[in-house]
Amino acid sequence: MKNKPNILVSNDDGIEAPGLQLLVEELKKFANVYVCAPYRQQSAVGHSITIFYPLRAYEHLKDGELFGMAVEGTPADAVKIGVLFFFKDVKFDLVVSGINHGANTAINIIYSGTVSAATEGTILGIPSIAVSLTTFSKVDFREPAKIASKVIRQIWEDDSIKISKGTLLNINIPNAEANQIKGVKITKQGKSYWEDSFDVRADPNGRDYYWLTGKMVYKDESTEYDIAAVNDNYISITPLHFDLTDYAAYEEINKWKIKI
Amino acid sequence: MKNKPNILVSNDDGIEAPGLQLLVEELKKFANVYVCAPYRQQSAVGHSITIFYPLRAYEHLKDGELFGMAVEGTPADAVKIGVLFFFKDVKFDLVVSGINHGANTAINIIYSGTVSAATEGTILGIPSIAVSLTTFSKVDFREPAKIASKVIRQIWEDDSIKISKGTLLNINIPNAEANQIKGVKITKQGKSYWEDSFDVRADPNGRDYYWLTGKMVYKDESTEYDIAAVNDNYISITPLHFDLTDYAAYEEINKWKIKI
Repeated sequence: MKNKPNILVSNDDGIEAPGLQLLVEELKKFANVYVCAPYRQQSAVGHSITIFYPLRAYEHLKDGELFGMAVEGTPADAVKIGVLFFFKDVKFDLVVSGINHGANTAINIIYSGTVSAATEGTILGIPSIAVSLTTFSKVDFREPAKIASKVIRQIWEDDSIKISKGTLLNINIPNAEANQIKGVKITKQGKSYWEDSFDVRADPNGRDYYWLTGKMVYKDESTEYDIAAVNDNYISITPLHFDLTDYAAYEEINKWKIKI
Repeated sequence: MKNKPNILVSNDDGIEAPGLQLLVEELKKFANVYVCAPYRQQSAVGHSITIFYPLRAYEHLKDGELFGMAVEGTPADAVKIGVLFFFKDVKFDLVVSGINHGANTAINIIYSGTVSAATEGTILGIPSIAVSLTTFSKVDFREPAKIASKVIRQIWEDDSIKISKGTLLNINIPNAEANQIKGVKITKQGKSYWEDSFDVRADPNGRDYYWLTGKMVYKDESTEYDIAAVNDNYISITPLHFDLTDYAAYEEINKWKIKI
C-alpha cells in the first residue's frame, strides 16, 4: 500500500466550479489535497503566463474553512505559484487539473487552459493529469468526479503504472450514465478541427465588433483517437508532451540548402 | 520564377513593434504583404483565443496610409480574423509572425505568442513561419529583418523546399553582426527550462502581490538544439507541429490495465 499522495488541484473554470469542487471531495478520500486555481473562469487561455503584471491571490473559504488559494491569473500561473510558493513545503506526487466543463480533445487541446495547468505541473517535474467532461450542457459532476477519482487512484496505487517524466495524461470522460461507459481507451490527439468564422455586429454607436464562431469538422472515425473514443462512450486517456518538435519534418528539412 | 506570394504578417509585440514594421518593409520587396496584428504587446499569451468577449479591430495607419489591421486580442485571434475576415478574399501563401523581440527557443516555445500566431496559420492550412531575435536588449531590427526576409524568400522560391501540411517553422536569429552569423542549422526544441520563483511585495495598503521571476537552466550543449545553435551564432530553424501526442508514452501506457 502506498502512502497517501499529495495532490495539487487546479483548473481553468475557476475555484468555485463544481467540476473542481466535487473532484476535490472525491480525491480527499485517498489523498492530501491542496487547491490553487484561478479566481475566475479562464477558458481558451492556452498556455499563458502572467509576466507583465504581478499576481494577486486570496484565501478561498468553503463552509467557513480554508478550501484553497484563488489566483487572479491563468491556470499555468495558479499551478506555478501553488507549487513554488503557497505550498512550497509540500512534496507533490500529482497535479490534477479539472474536471473541466467541456471536452479537451483533438484541436481543442491546443487552446485548453485545463491541459495548460497539467502541462505546467509536468514542466515543474510533477506527474500531471488533466480531466474533462465532454459536454457543455448543464450537468451533475458527482458521478464524473467519482469516475475520475477512481481512475486517478489506480494510476497512483498501481505499481505497474508510472507516468514517465515529461508526459502528462489528458483524460476525457464521456457524458453518459456510469453503466453506459464501456471502459478506458488509450488514445492519440484527434485531427478534428474547427471551421471558424466571424459574426460581425454593430454596437449601439454603430461601431463593428466581431464574435468568433465555428463548427467542428469531424475527421476521426477510429477510437484510437480521443474524440472518437469519447463519442463511443469510452474514457479516453491521451499521453501528451510539450516537445513540439515535428521529428518527421526534421528529417526532411535537414536536406534543405538555405544560404544567408 | 514563382508568382509574388501573398503573406499575412502578425506578431505578439503589437502592430507598432519595429520588429514587425521592418520585416514588413523587407518582405514587400518580393511579396504582397497584409498585416493583422495585436493592438498591444501580448507576450507569453500562449495559444489563447478570445471566446467570451467579442474582438474589436482598427485600421492602423503609417505615414498616412493604411498599414494593416490592429486587433484587440491575442496573436492567434489576429491571424484567425485576418485570414477569415479582413483579408478573406486573399489566398495566402504564407503566414509570418515576428520578428519577436526575444528568443523563442526551448521551453519558451510553450508560452510564446509569436509561435502561437504561426501555429494558428498552420491550423488554417497555410504554411507558417515564426521569427524571433534572441535578445531582450535594445536593438536595431534592420539587419535581422533583411536576414529573415532572405531566408523566407528562399523558402518560398526554392522548389526543393516545401513546408509539409501541419508543420510550422520556428526561426531564431542570433543577436550578432551579419558577418558573424555562421549559417542555418535545422534544430530540435531544446530541453532548457526556467527555474521559477515568486518575489513577494506589499502594496502601499499592506496587501501582498507576487512577481514571477526565474533563471534559465541550460540543458542543451549540442547545436542540434535550437538554444545551443543560436548561442553558437547559427540561425536555428525548428519544425514544430501541434500534435501533442507523446507517441513513445502511448506505446507504454497502452499496456496499463485501468478498471472503471
